[in-house]
Amino acid sequence: MLALGASFMAVSCSKNEPTAAKPQSGLTMRAYGERSPFEKTQRGARESTKSIGVGSSRTPLQDLYGTITPSSLHFERHHAGVPVIEPAAHRLVIHGLVEQAVSFTMEDLRRFPSVTRPHFIECSGNGGGELAGNAGADASRSHGLLSNSEWTGVKLSTVLEAAKVKADAKWVIAEGADACRMARSIPMAKAMEDSLLVYAQNGEALRPEQGYPLRLLLPGWEGNASIKWLHRLHVAAEAAMTNQETAHYTDLHPDGKATIFSFEMEASSVITRPSGGQKLAGAGFHEVSGLAWSGRGKVAKVEVSFDGGANWKEAVLDGPVLPKAAVRFRIPWQWDGQPTLIASRCIDETGYVQPTRDEILAARGPNSQYHYNGVKRWSVKADGSVTSV
Amino acid sequence: MLALGASFMAVSCSKNEPTAAKPQSGLTMRAYGERSPFEKTQRGARESTKSIGVGSSRTPLQDLYGTITPSSLHFERHHAGVPVIEPAAHRLVIHGLVEQAVSFTMEDLRRFPSVTRPHFIECSGNGGGELAGNAGADASRSHGLLSNSEWTGVKLSTVLEAAKVKADAKWVIAEGADACRMARSIPMAKAMEDSLLVYAQNGEALRPEQGYPLRLLLPGWEGNASIKWLHRLHVAAEAAMTNQETAHYTDLHPDGKATIFSFEMEASSVITRPSGGQKLAGAGFHEVSGLAWSGRGKVAKVEVSFDGGANWKEAVLDGPVLPKAAVRFRIPWQWDGQPTLIASRCIDETGYVQPTRDEILAARGPNSQYHYNGVKRWSVKADGSVTSV
Repeated sequence: MLALGASFMAVSCSKNEPTAAKPQSGLTMRAYGERSPFEKTQRGARESTKSIGVGSSRTPLQDLYGTITPSSLHFERHHAGVPVIEPAAHRLVIHGLVEQAVSFTMEDLRRFPSVTRPHFIECSGNGGGELAGNAGADASRSHGLLSNSEWTGVKLSTVLEAAKVKADAKWVIAEGADACRMARSIPMAKAMEDSLLVYAQNGEALRPEQGYPLRLLLPGWEGNASIKWLHRLHVAAEAAMTNQETAHYTDLHPDGKATIFSFEMEASSVITRPSGGQKLAGAGFHEVSGLAWSGRGKVAKVEVSFDGGANWKEAVLDGPVLPKAAVRFRIPWQWDGQPTLIASRCIDETGYVQPTRDEILAARGPNSQYHYNGVKRWSVKADGSVTSV
Repeated sequence: MLALGASFMAVSCSKNEPTAAKPQSGLTMRAYGERSPFEKTQRGARESTKSIGVGSSRTPLQDLYGTITPSSLHFERHHAGVPVIEPAAHRLVIHGLVEQAVSFTMEDLRRFPSVTRPHFIECSGNGGGELAGNAGADASRSHGLLSNSEWTGVKLSTVLEAAKVKADAKWVIAEGADACRMARSIPMAKAMEDSLLVYAQNGEALRPEQGYPLRLLLPGWEGNASIKWLHRLHVAAEAAMTNQETAHYTDLHPDGKATIFSFEMEASSVITRPSGGQKLAGAGFHEVSGLAWSGRGKVAKVEVSFDGGANWKEAVLDGPVLPKAAVRFRIPWQWDGQPTLIASRCIDETGYVQPTRDEILAARGPNSQYHYNGVKRWSVKADGSVTSV
């Protein structure tokens, strides 16, 4: 018998018909279902600049369950909006340092051997506000540039082998079909290791906002490099030094120099329940739950603190723990009704321990804008309200 | 280097801009995304009787990828339509052989310790047409009353323990809030083993067609018993012998007697690509892929035949392989262009081997309507067209 709050036992019922629902003939079947009209959860903090189509929206992590992000709520980060692409007209061209330039239709790509892999995608700007001292008021604002899906496609290595890459090829420059021709340079080792050309997401065709009909997916690496609406792979001896890998998505040091090509997303985590903006109904039993992930491989362990980070308890990892995929963690908590600082930290299979914000500031200085993965703390007040720290 | 069809290599390209897509500023962000307007896949074979709200729709397995069924394409089987339920007004009542009758709100239920589990749900009528000799023309019509989702909720055992079940309780009678008050009797052993009260599906709230805001989920058992729109659990010493467990969902023997309470869905599988209604572009390399599942536990092995069932080759299971969950299998195939009968069979961790239709007919006779799990064969013609056998 679990130690549940006494409140569960307080409600008895009569022996009459037990619910308020009145029997009535229901709705008929639909070709493609929709969620209940009572469900209003939406992508949050949609921001756009003066430039058309430049902006982001965030996954409402605090409202979700399990590990899969519903495709309709996957975060967005666009630099030129979402292009409308007719799949029958779409081509993937591979050229440069290959024996023969090739052009594939979507049907060609679907004919290759395929794989299905659950992986997270995280924008390297996720949590940047935390480092800057602008803590996100809720889990969406603090960590919502992170989503997790079941992806299906063909290994990039399979397609590159078909094009016969030459020996002096060291980079693959991937270009999207959006209006800004988003392009990033991918080291050949990553291209051949576990990179995917993805045409499906959570069982059906990729969504437009995630690159329909085809995207690159670099498991565990910063989202920006997983080029959406992929139409070109230029195999080359040198990186292209594109705008997005030189002027942006670099890590600025205190001395003004910057690290480029820092692709890997390090271990991170966030408690989603209870989290900022939520309110606990009262003292007693509560489950604390959240998501953890690491771009280096599998999550080994998640620890939760109920005193702001002084002491840590190991949480349960719910369900298959897969490399470079988010996992749900859970830990029971008997809340005594006193103000409490809760926090989580992820330890991955390499032994890496998610650091605190202070540790990151000490190591990188205040200029760093990307790849923030500091421990996130939430403050539970005596009235049950939860706020960001 | 994979042995791919020469057709992949035949298309070279110029060095000019490689795709047909013309750069244009794309669409802006949306609060809740939708699929591409070019995607038309829908639930198939929507059938309804003269009674309002009685019918089914099928998952288009032949058009899907990976293991997750998109919630919008989960199969439906309704006996009184889809009720519209306001979650704030919904209650789950537990009464009968318990120390104290209790009534839970949805917030109460979400406060219990939760679990996330991928599981299939299969209607026990799935494949019934195959047994009757009316082979489904495509994978939707043959096996589309099967879907697979990531479910989140509370263990039924947790909630029953909270209500303090009495020693003489042997059954839990679950009742839905649809207009027909669908009800089924669940043995206490299953209720305490792995049954779930589910409020979320694939990361967000349960869809209306799958029982919003709350359903029962009995992993591996016939779908009808996983009562949707769950509002009542009557704990009892005897089964209720409801309409749906006596007049329907029973297995009729040749002598006119019937087996009741045959809940378990045995090992099954279906090749979804290539499958009925599809057409191969030509001889050469093709990947054969499909889904396999077992209500008894994990899938141990899937074998594929390219000669109608005389010889079998082991397919790759594209992991993770989880108990009572569908798994994607794949196997490479060099098609010589000749007419070919392809088939798959599932072997589960108990050693059970999916039988042929003839074996099922010999064992059960022709009256059996439910729990058909015979090996499904597809005929590939010389012109590449695929039909049902």
